Amino acid sequence: MRRIRVGLLGLGTVGSGVFKALKSNRDVILKRTDLLFEISGILVRDRQKRREVDGIQPLLTTRFEQLLEQKVDVVLEAIGGVEPARTYIERALKAGCHVVTANKELIAKHGVELDALAQEKGVQLLYEASVGGGIPVLGTLRHLLKSNRIHRFSAILNGTTNYILTRMETEGISFDQALAEAQQKGYAEADPTSDVDGLDAAYKLAILGRLTFEVDVPVSQVSCRGIRDINPWELQLARSLGYRIKLLAQGEQYGEKGPLSLQVGPALLPFSHPLARIEGVHNAVHLEGDIVQDVTLVGQGAGERPTASAMVEDLCNVCCLPADHGCSAGEATLLPVDTGGSRFLFLETRESITQAKVAEVREVLRQIGLAVTDVSALREGKNGLAIILRRWDPSYPAVLLAELGLDVTHVVDRPVFGAVSSSDPALAASVS
Amino acid sequence: MRRIRVGLLGLGTVGSGVFKALKSNRDVILKRTDLLFEISGILVRDRQKRREVDGIQPLLTTRFEQLLEQKVDVVLEAIGGVEPARTYIERALKAGCHVVTANKELIAKHGVELDALAQEKGVQLLYEASVGGGIPVLGTLRHLLKSNRIHRFSAILNGTTNYILTRMETEGISFDQALAEAQQKGYAEADPTSDVDGLDAAYKLAILGRLTFEVDVPVSQVSCRGIRDINPWELQLARSLGYRIKLLAQGEQYGEKGPLSLQVGPALLPFSHPLARIEGVHNAVHLEGDIVQDVTLVGQGAGERPTASAMVEDLCNVCCLPADHGCSAGEATLLPVDTGGSRFLFLETRESITQAKVAEVREVLRQIGLAVTDVSALREGKNGLAIILRRWDPSYPAVLLAELGLDVTHVVDRPVFGAVSSSDPALAASVS
Repeated sequence: MRRIRVGLLGLGTVGSGVFKALKSNRDVILKRTDLLFEISGILVRDRQKRREVDGIQPLLTTRFEQLLEQKVDVVLEAIGGVEPARTYIERALKAGCHVVTANKELIAKHGVELDALAQEKGVQLLYEASVGGGIPVLGTLRHLLKSNRIHRFSAILNGTTNYILTRMETEGISFDQALAEAQQKGYAEADPTSDVDGLDAAYKLAILGRLTFEVDVPVSQVSCRGIRDINPWELQLARSLGYRIKLLAQGEQYGEKGPLSLQVGPALLPFSHPLARIEGVHNAVHLEGDIVQDVTLVGQGAGERPTASAMVEDLCNVCCLPADHGCSAGEATLLPVDTGGSRFLFLETRESITQAKVAEVREVLRQIGLAVTDVSALREGKNGLAIILRRWDPSYPAVLLAELGLDVTHVVDRPVFGAVSSSDPALAASVS
Repeated sequence: MRRIRVGLLGLGTVGSGVFKALKSNRDVILKRTDLLFEISGILVRDRQKRREVDGIQPLLTTRFEQLLEQKVDVVLEAIGGVEPARTYIERALKAGCHVVTANKELIAKHGVELDALAQEKGVQLLYEASVGGGIPVLGTLRHLLKSNRIHRFSAILNGTTNYILTRMETEGISFDQALAEAQQKGYAEADPTSDVDGLDAAYKLAILGRLTFEVDVPVSQVSCRGIRDINPWELQLARSLGYRIKLLAQGEQYGEKGPLSLQVGPALLPFSHPLARIEGVHNAVHLEGDIVQDVTLVGQGAGERPTASAMVEDLCNVCCLPADHGCSAGEATLLPVDTGGSRFLFLETRESITQAKVAEVREVLRQIGLAVTDVSALREGKNGLAIILRRWDPSYPAVLLAELGLDVTHVVDRPVFGAVSSSDPALAASVS
């Protein structure tokens, strides 16, 4: 049996989740890993605050130095945000401690230098909980798919927006209503900016991209769109055409050591796509590798217990599994967002669109020579039209508005990911 | 750089897949693991047979002894079946070689003693490819969810039957037609018994159950039903009620160190269940753990490349990752199959069932006091009726046949897994 001394930074949802999990699963961990974790100290801002966790009072401190003086083996950071987390982690690594963190913003922005520091000091820095909550995706990439070249991934990495989109689609409620509901249930924060504008997903994408493609990914260069401009009518039209709209994080490498495309934004997925059916607060990552073909991992992307699971697993792994070789090939070359390929165009109109008008639109599109896959209009007094075009050019909306003669109040376009699979015509037919 | 000498047993689909993958991904493996794998010899039955792999002739041998004399570090078994694979693996382990195998039958039947032998000799025996093809599910259980108590899993572990069921449902073709198609595409063997009768899935279930619950699972005691008695009308009726029928492998432990339920058989899954949308030859495993909540892994369950991926990853892992502690708690206590809970009853009839008759059936069921969730009949000249009952007793079919007065030619009942989720009423409505 090896005793491992742990210093815990922060006792919010994540920190207390880890504390409880280490206690409840102590026997399982000891049996399987021969490791006994002892919390040596917990850094908090306020020692007097009422805590729901029992027997914790003697461990609390407000001074980081005091924690390090306890000769901890691993520092577990559960504060979040860049500072003071960054300073604490740097000092812990320099003191020869392993570090486990769930801090996506910090790792997205400073992971490269912190990884280098850990390697220099011969300790491990693990951050499984920073991407996909409880889903062991970074561990899978590091340890279980390491002989594969992963050339592409697509992922749902933000549970808050996935919950909002699921509710908007199934209940027909507005973005604001769905957001308020998510906030009420604790799925969204009081300031939802980072989630709904796609920044949270972009942090996770940057981390996932770095591990997958082994190049440094500057998060500031990741193209990022959020979901504020989506309304339930757009979701309904997409659905009638056989698609669901998801906030998708995508990464692709063009050729070995080639340039990357990395983007976060709403995209249409055909029902047959493995990510199309990911509901509510679940996250999912679809990986494409040269030998394994495809692997999809699905799980809870946030919450006290799934996040604690990832951190406790990391805690075991700094002791059980080997460190990465850290073979980054330098900074990534990022390609501009590809606006080619298949695209969904949603036009909200002042008038209701009849089936005769839909036929007329099809004819106009044919005459101006656009390659159209499908056209659909809202019914029952809701006003809007959607077109899926096989090839896309940013000038199309202006051309179409001029040619179609519709009184349009809102225009938006989204990439369409993959094609409707013919494997499930019954389902496709049932919703069209 | 460490050179690792590999002896390969068998050069069929899997063996040549591994040979090709080690060649094509040599650079990636070397960069990430510092390991260089060299095939020292390949055991085949016939040295003269024409091979599609280049430069392989000098490595071929028909004598296992000759392979061991090459001082190989790892033996990679890709023959399949119990003998002579078992003898070869035992001799390799006794000679101090690590062993990697894809052999589900062998590991299901003799994994306990082979694991013990490997532990005694201080070498590793890995068999990721034996369950779920390319999906790294055993590695995930061993290394990435080891602080979790997994109390339940459900899985689709046989791609052949999943392909057949998918085709029967989407195309409305018979079992025999779908099987012939699967054979033509190379998804089913000339003798499909092991796949369609559920034995292949039972082998994998026994392996997965042993790793998950850390007890020895005698494969002969796993309850096992196949898919031969399913017809497209039954699939259609299940679908109209909001379910899909899948050949499900399920494992559950009742309380810590408690008895297990392990079964393979067709079961109904609501559309909202993560496994309901697994199509074609894909496999999937849904794990429920006490901290992580739920994690689902999806990927290709068979085929040259996915299987080769799992074996090559294992090959790296005998060198990179620690061996299991091997903390089996002895033989499992298996519970008899639970026939309680919600159940689907399908009656094929000589007559067509009108909606008036459906209403009459509902009334009869109400009168005899059965808790009914739903009733649905086939239309368009197809003759059949399905009933979902909330509680079940094996005597019900006889009671119902007497009470309903229908001329029934075929009766079957299946467990219903979970309840229709209310999260997606639109989809549920669209197919009912």
